[in-house]
Amino acid sequence: MMHDLIRGYFAPVFGIEQLNDSAIVANDRPGRIAITTDSYVVSPLFFPGGDIGRLAVCGTVNDLSVSGAEPLYMTAGFIIEEGFPLGDLKRVLDSMRAAAEEAGIRIVAGDTKVVDRGKADGLFINTAGFGVVEEGVDLSPLRIRPGDRVVLSGSIGNHGVAVMAERNGISFDPPLLSDVGPLNALARRMLGATKNIRMMRDPTRGGLATTLKEIAAESGKCIVVREDAIRVRPGVRGACELLGLDPLYIANEGILVAIVDAADATALAGAMKETGAGAESVVIGEVAEGPGKTVLLKTSVGGIRIIDMLSGDQLPRIC
Amino acid sequence: MMHDLIRGYFAPVFGIEQLNDSAIVANDRPGRIAITTDSYVVSPLFFPGGDIGRLAVCGTVNDLSVSGAEPLYMTAGFIIEEGFPLGDLKRVLDSMRAAAEEAGIRIVAGDTKVVDRGKADGLFINTAGFGVVEEGVDLSPLRIRPGDRVVLSGSIGNHGVAVMAERNGISFDPPLLSDVGPLNALARRMLGATKNIRMMRDPTRGGLATTLKEIAAESGKCIVVREDAIRVRPGVRGACELLGLDPLYIANEGILVAIVDAADATALAGAMKETGAGAESVVIGEVAEGPGKTVLLKTSVGGIRIIDMLSGDQLPRIC
Repeated sequence: MMHDLIRGYFAPVFGIEQLNDSAIVANDRPGRIAITTDSYVVSPLFFPGGDIGRLAVCGTVNDLSVSGAEPLYMTAGFIIEEGFPLGDLKRVLDSMRAAAEEAGIRIVAGDTKVVDRGKADGLFINTAGFGVVEEGVDLSPLRIRPGDRVVLSGSIGNHGVAVMAERNGISFDPPLLSDVGPLNALARRMLGATKNIRMMRDPTRGGLATTLKEIAAESGKCIVVREDAIRVRPGVRGACELLGLDPLYIANEGILVAIVDAADATALAGAMKETGAGAESVVIGEVAEGPGKTVLLKTSVGGIRIIDMLSGDQLPRIC
Repeated sequence: MMHDLIRGYFAPVFGIEQLNDSAIVANDRPGRIAITTDSYVVSPLFFPGGDIGRLAVCGTVNDLSVSGAEPLYMTAGFIIEEGFPLGDLKRVLDSMRAAAEEAGIRIVAGDTKVVDRGKADGLFINTAGFGVVEEGVDLSPLRIRPGDRVVLSGSIGNHGVAVMAERNGISFDPPLLSDVGPLNALARRMLGATKNIRMMRDPTRGGLATTLKEIAAESGKCIVVREDAIRVRPGVRGACELLGLDPLYIANEGILVAIVDAADATALAGAMKETGAGAESVVIGEVAEGPGKTVLLKTSVGGIRIIDMLSGDQLPRIC
C-alpha cells in the first residue's frame, strides 16, 4: 500500500510516465559517453545547506563534470524503509527536482523498493549519470607533468562538518552550511578557458587529502601544496577542532581540484572566480617529479608534512 | 576497514579501475539511447536457480531488451550491511560477472557504501542500464490494434515460487528453479523475425496479470487470454496451492510477453522457440477493441474472469 502511495509521488515530481521501463532518449550529441553511479546513505537525511536529494543529484552531476562530461541524464532508485514519513519523501523529491533544474540534468528513469521496518535506515538513494564528453576533451591523471599547477575551487570541509554537526546535535551561529551544489557550469567555464587542463576531480569522501593522494598515486608524480593557500572557513576550522577532525580529510560536495599547465594556471583561476561555484578559486600548489606517488603539505609554520590516505573512513555515511 | 576490503574485491571481478569516477565509453552505435534503473532487495539473497547478483544483471538486461534496445553498459551500486560475509559478497560478484558475460553487457562503473549493522539487510544492489535502440525499432503500447496477438515466451511463476519457497524453508524434489536469465538474445531474434512487434514487456513484480493489465491500461484496449494456453509447471502449480498464491500474479525474471500483428504471430512464436529463453513460446491470446483497459481470462472450465491489479505487492522483496 505504501508502495502505491509512493509511486504516485514520483511521476509528477520528475515528469516521467513509467517508473519501471526504460526511458528512450535522443543520442544527438557527438562525443564519447560518460557513465557514473553512486549510492547515497547520508545520515541524517537533512542537514544545514542540503539533504540527501540535493546530494544525490549534485554528486551525480559532479562525477560527470570532473570527467569532462556535460551531464545530460540521470536515474534515481529509492530504497525506502516501511513507515518512512511521506512528508520527508516529498521534501527530498522536491529538492531533487530543484537541484536537477539548477544543474540542467534530466531525471529520466526511477525505481522504488520498500523494505520492512528495521531493514533499511529511512531512505537510501542510488543514482546513475550519463553525459557526453566532447571531442578534444581528454582528462586523465596520466597527462600530469612536473611543473603543472594545482587549482582548488573553494574552501574545504564544509559538507562533512555540516553533516557531522547535525548528526551530533551541535548547532553553530552562524550555521555551518554544506557546500553541496552542482559543478557543471564551473567545469564548462574551465574547459572553455583553456585546453591545458590535465584532469579534474571532486574531493568528496576522504576530503582533499585523499583526492590529492589518489592523483599522486595514479599519475606516479609528487603533489606539493601549501597549507596557507587552502581555505578553511573559520567556523569549519573551529568545528573541526571541537570534533577532533582534520579538515583536509573532510568530505566536500561543491568544490573541485584541477591540475593545469603552469602557463594557464592564473588565467584558469581567474575564469573560475567568475562563476558562482568557483568564487574562491586559488592555486594551492604544483606537481613535482618526485618523490613519486606522494603528497607533501608545506605547513604554515614552515614544515613539510607527508599526506597519506586514512585506512578507514574518518566519517562514515557522509554521503 | 570493511570498506577497503570490499573495494579490493570489485576491480578484479569487473575489470574496472576506478569505482568512483565516471567510465568513459565509445558512442559509436547509431540510434536512440535507452536508460533504465532498478534496485534489488530480494530476500533471501540466494535462491534455487539464482541469486541477487544474477537477478540484478538479468533484470537490467531485460528492461532494456523489452524496450527494443541492445544492452551495452550497466552500473552497479552496492549498499552493504556491516558484517555481511565477504564469502557471500564474492559469490554474488562472481555471479554478476558470469551473468554479464552470458548477456554480453559490460559493467562499467560501480560504487559501494557500507552502513552499520541493523541499518540494511545484508546487501542491496542498484543498477542502471544503458542500451541503443536501432533505427526503425519503435515499441509502444500505443501501437497496439484490435486483432493483434499476445505471445508469451515461457511458463509463469518460476521465479517468485523459488524465492518464496526458499524464504519459507520449503524445498521441493525436484527443486523449483527461478527462471532468472537474460532475454536479449531472444528479443534480438524476435526483432529480426518481424517488423510488426508492437511492444514487449517482461512480467516481473506483479506477474503476468499485472503486466497485461498495465498494457491494457496504457493502450486503452482489451486483452483476452486463454488460461489453458498459459503454461504453469506442475511443481509451481502445486507450490502455489500450498502457499495460497495465484501464479498469474507471481514474479518472473526470464520471460517476456509480446504483442504482435496477427499475421506474424505464428511465425514469431516459431522463431522464439529456436532460442533457449523462448523454447516454450506460445500464443496466449489477442487484443480486442473493448471493453477498454480490461484484461479478460477465458478459464479452462469455459468461464470468463476479469483480471485486475492487486492493490499491494502479493510478494514483497521478490526482486
